[in-house]
Amino acid sequence: MNLHYLDNSATTQVSEAAANKAMELMRGNFANPSSLHSLGFEASKELTKARETVAKAIGADSAEIYFTSGGSEANNLAIFGVAEAMKRRGNKIVTDAAEHSSVYDPMQKLKSMGYDVVFLKTDKSGKISIDEAFEKIDENTVLVSVMHTNNETGAVNPISDLSNIIKRKNSPAVLHCDAVQAFGKTPIKVAKLGVNLLSVSAHKIHGPKGVGALYVKKGTRLIPQHFGGKQEKELRGGTEAMPLIGAFGVAVSELSVEASHNRVKALNTYLREKLSEIEGITVNSPKDASPYILNFSTGIIRSETMLHHLSGDGVFVSSGSACSKGGKSRVLTSMGLPDEIIDTAIRVSFSKHSTYEDCDALTESLKNGLKNLARRK
Amino acid sequence: MNLHYLDNSATTQVSEAAANKAMELMRGNFANPSSLHSLGFEASKELTKARETVAKAIGADSAEIYFTSGGSEANNLAIFGVAEAMKRRGNKIVTDAAEHSSVYDPMQKLKSMGYDVVFLKTDKSGKISIDEAFEKIDENTVLVSVMHTNNETGAVNPISDLSNIIKRKNSPAVLHCDAVQAFGKTPIKVAKLGVNLLSVSAHKIHGPKGVGALYVKKGTRLIPQHFGGKQEKELRGGTEAMPLIGAFGVAVSELSVEASHNRVKALNTYLREKLSEIEGITVNSPKDASPYILNFSTGIIRSETMLHHLSGDGVFVSSGSACSKGGKSRVLTSMGLPDEIIDTAIRVSFSKHSTYEDCDALTESLKNGLKNLARRK
Repeated sequence: MNLHYLDNSATTQVSEAAANKAMELMRGNFANPSSLHSLGFEASKELTKARETVAKAIGADSAEIYFTSGGSEANNLAIFGVAEAMKRRGNKIVTDAAEHSSVYDPMQKLKSMGYDVVFLKTDKSGKISIDEAFEKIDENTVLVSVMHTNNETGAVNPISDLSNIIKRKNSPAVLHCDAVQAFGKTPIKVAKLGVNLLSVSAHKIHGPKGVGALYVKKGTRLIPQHFGGKQEKELRGGTEAMPLIGAFGVAVSELSVEASHNRVKALNTYLREKLSEIEGITVNSPKDASPYILNFSTGIIRSETMLHHLSGDGVFVSSGSACSKGGKSRVLTSMGLPDEIIDTAIRVSFSKHSTYEDCDALTESLKNGLKNLARRK
Repeated sequence: MNLHYLDNSATTQVSEAAANKAMELMRGNFANPSSLHSLGFEASKELTKARETVAKAIGADSAEIYFTSGGSEANNLAIFGVAEAMKRRGNKIVTDAAEHSSVYDPMQKLKSMGYDVVFLKTDKSGKISIDEAFEKIDENTVLVSVMHTNNETGAVNPISDLSNIIKRKNSPAVLHCDAVQAFGKTPIKVAKLGVNLLSVSAHKIHGPKGVGALYVKKGTRLIPQHFGGKQEKELRGGTEAMPLIGAFGVAVSELSVEASHNRVKALNTYLREKLSEIEGITVNSPKDASPYILNFSTGIIRSETMLHHLSGDGVFVSSGSACSKGGKSRVLTSMGLPDEIIDTAIRVSFSKHSTYEDCDALTESLKNGLKNLARRK
């Protein structure tokens, strides 16, 4: 049976070159980059190289890149780090209810600590309203955190507009953007977005799980949240995860963002057409979503049941974020979708390696599933 | 030139089997263990297996093991997690000044937050005094954090005595132990030590950098410090770093703690003898230290200068913790050693693969260094 892996927003297969780099940094050039001897120096060169590669990919300076244990830690560091650094300036924070748990949960924590956290409403795809953002961002707002590409629907938020609002409203707010589902898939330049902080992850772009990075614009103050040594300019202590960091660098160097985007866009269009031929399917992703994510609902078969059926045919998708482990999707719920849409949602997520055959296998299996599972209900 | 790597307390070479497991989890079984399809389930089995292996190695239940991004994060989570969970019970914390930065720095942070942090004095090897501990631990103490094996001298602290003191003084204190330099090198059983929390790391025992674990005794309350999803029973959110976690499990399964301990003990004795033949050398590690670490001072050649010389002969050691990146050792300073000892300290750290040839190469190069560098002074 051929495998049709369409769950690339959960995680991706590590590229061969990236995996080989990890291997090299485990077996060959394995020293601690903070060690003062020549082996340590060799390792530190790999660290520098990876940092430069990640920086270049988002148009940043390499001194603005801080490696973390993943996108989640980058988000946590950004949010708690700014909240603490800015606490004398104000305690209002603006975010939205469709954020990933690694933003949403820290926000709940800040709320419990007394911060005034405003959750912007989103439309049915998870996109914020720029009018509401304009209304809520003010002179007391110290942090605005809105994701670039929604991880369940692919909806893309107007990040640069938020940057403009912050300026126009004379707000001291630091702008953070969780770009985990956008990085490597959509051209991202920090200056164009106007962000102070941007979170990225390796394992969504054919790098390994366990490493990510936070872009911190020069001059943006962050209080460290994790201590352990002088690594990462004392913002993030602990021995650098060299095998992963090196592999992350290689994965980034292999990106061809625009070419892949166009390829995946064609696939997405193809799959939308195929889905439109199946009765009862509702597409939840907006037309202008990232082509890498296509969320739809069958309306009649529960997500887990359909997932199990598809998996039996070698087609692997998800019901929403892998991180929620099958719980009712908070993100889809926050978008105000009806229960029968939420409970039957399927997220297809592409990588640059996805094919038309993958789409065909999915729609075939889906049709059989709809026929057989509906009968059994 | 043969390489003589004697900096294994900074980091170790990843074993072939562990590296191969990481490779497998990057290229083959690469799914997200939280994914609900069969590939996710395969990945989750690897997670369970690694957790069981780590648990067994310290005599814990696998439900008591939480994977982190390393020893530093485990220490941070333990300290901040307990301080927050126990804040209604009291705000006194007992630790010591010879702890690793990933304990010492969080303690400084807690102090700045208003906690009453008591730093026990240590002897010249970094060992705490059990009498002082008895005096300081009281009914208001909520956390005691003392490392098992000091990372610069190898001095071993009386952890189980601390556990007894906590009981005898009717203290509600949670006992945390940073066992990063002990795990896999000295037989460690959590019940025997009487700890509630124990931090371990993979990359000191031939696993990869970027992964560690915190043992949390059943019933010990910790407030999460990092949010991102339902992973690690919601104590530590974020996609699990599977390649590293799997490799960690394999590295642990390859440990033969007692046999390696005996081998390294013989090497340590051999090196001590060789060093005793060189004029002016002061050994800073106590006789009953972990055999894996041997710290000594030349008294006349600055550590960095000697490190550079040794490195030229293919001998790799350190001047102290790699994490301090060549700064004056806080640990040695806290022990009250004179400047000429601190500034000329060399840390040799063995692995189970170290050899007599490594010791010979070190002492030969050291002798030449002492002769030539002293002349040039």
